[in-house]
Amino acid sequence: MPVNPHPRGKLITLEGGEGAGKSTLLRGLEAHLRAQGADLVVTREPGGTDVGEAVRGVVLDAANNELCAEGELLLMFASRAQLVRQVIEPALAAGRWVLCDRFTDASYAYQGGGRGQPLERIAALERWAALGLRPDITLLLDLPVAQGRARAAGRGDADRIEVEGDAFFERIRDAYRSRAAADPGRFRVLDASAAPDAVLAQAIAGVAGLFERAPS
Amino acid sequence: MPVNPHPRGKLITLEGGEGAGKSTLLRGLEAHLRAQGADLVVTREPGGTDVGEAVRGVVLDAANNELCAEGELLLMFASRAQLVRQVIEPALAAGRWVLCDRFTDASYAYQGGGRGQPLERIAALERWAALGLRPDITLLLDLPVAQGRARAAGRGDADRIEVEGDAFFERIRDAYRSRAAADPGRFRVLDASAAPDAVLAQAIAGVAGLFERAPS
Ligand SMILES: Nc1ncnc2c1ncn2[C@@H]1O[C@H](COP(=O)(O)OP(=O)(O)OP(=O)(O)O)[C@@H](O)[C@H]1O
Ligand SMILES: Nc1ncnc2c1ncn2[C@@H]1O[C@H](COP(=O)(O)OP(=O)(O)OP(=O)(O)O)[C@@H](O)[C@H]1O
Ligand SMILES: [Mg+2]
Ligand SMILES: [Mg+2]
Repeated sequence: MPVNPHPRGKLITLEGGEGAGKSTLLRGLEAHLRAQGADLVVTREPGGTDVGEAVRGVVLDAANNELCAEGELLLMFASRAQLVRQVIEPALAAGRWVLCDRFTDASYAYQGGGRGQPLERIAALERWAALGLRPDITLLLDLPVAQGRARAAGRGDADRIEVEGDAFFERIRDAYRSRAAADPGRFRVLDASAAPDAVLAQAIAGVAGLFERAPS
Repeated sequence: MPVNPHPRGKLITLEGGEGAGKSTLLRGLEAHLRAQGADLVVTREPGGTDVGEAVRGVVLDAANNELCAEGELLLMFASRAQLVRQVIEPALAAGRWVLCDRFTDASYAYQGGGRGQPLERIAALERWAALGLRPDITLLLDLPVAQGRARAAGRGDADRIEVEGDAFFERIRDAYRSRAAADPGRFRVLDASAAPDAVLAQAIAGVAGLFERAPS
């Protein structure tokens, strides 16, 4: 029996508050990674599967303003459980790389920091619902809340989460920064107030280590 | 300060496999409870709230046949977290009675017995997502699998769960019966193979104890 013919792929996630520039960066980074020869799967959370996109519709629908914090947490992990099993893990196992717009760190920041759900509750869900899967690199787009709001304001109707107040988004920013400080080997904190090209350059530098050849 | 002016209401749940006659019994039991003077809220799972009904749509949609067992469990508890906080607990606290078509026992039977999700995982979700809320009386409509299938067959297109095989539904029946045997104070096992009137009579006898006046 031959050993597994391809090394396991890499998982790169983009995190940050509303309007920090994740989706903008994703497009540039995707082009860079493909140019480097990565066989890449690009996806997002919540969503990324038929089930997940249906759940995304429920969780972001501004009409569902009565959704409780526990329900929000469970819906986010329902989408994630499906994405991990249907898309991310099979891709990584096949040697493909995965670039994902938000992942479990967003639950620690939004449902934990933002909504006050206990971190141990989130950690338990991460273990069994998300298979304990941790990204190889997480790019955190750090930006003052007011700047993110100003950027996002141009996009039309706010969803169920975007209508929250500044204190909520400050807690989210703090939670993201705490997680990054606690795990500097995985996180790269980017200055998201820079121009898009400069943010992309920081991101490219942040993932460069992934292309180093493993010792053979 | 006056003490709470009304005693806490009672929660009655109906459980059983597909086509066992839960929804049929619910209508008869609702009429009986109202005739007895109960101020009654009637609801169902998954569903019972706007969020829950949207989740029900996702979880029962036969097109979502890739939904993983963990995702199914999380969606069921997302609906339940919302129902408990928005409907059931406020009603009970106000002294109203609640009659619910399925509740947490269905997760132990379907996601636990049927899909093999660990019982401790379900128990943890019950504690924090469903506030540890247990019914006062649970009426289990017990019926051989083949009879339930024959009854349900008359209703047109099967949903995502109804398309499963007999072994799946046998595990569910076994799980329900085990739970009933382990908690005889709460469960009433009804012979659901009887005619509708006879099933209703068993149910009325099963809930009679709830109408006894508390010692004052
Ligand atoms: N570096 C940047 N400098 C200035 N504006 C930017 C920058 N990056 C993105 N923008 C603009 O800010 C807005 C929000 O960007 P984008 O949609 O990429 O953010 P996001 O983090 O994906 O937001 P969300 O969390 O809502 O998905 C867009 O109008 C985008 O063009
Ligand atoms: N006691 C009974 N005897 C014979 N037929 C019955 C009886 N109770 C219900 N039925 C019939 O069986 C079918 C299924 O009943 P019902 O919809 O009440 O079951 P259910 O347990 O709510 O099913 P589901 O789990 O799919 O919601 C219906 O056609 C109903 O008329
Ligand atoms: Mg975006
Ligand atoms: Mg029914």
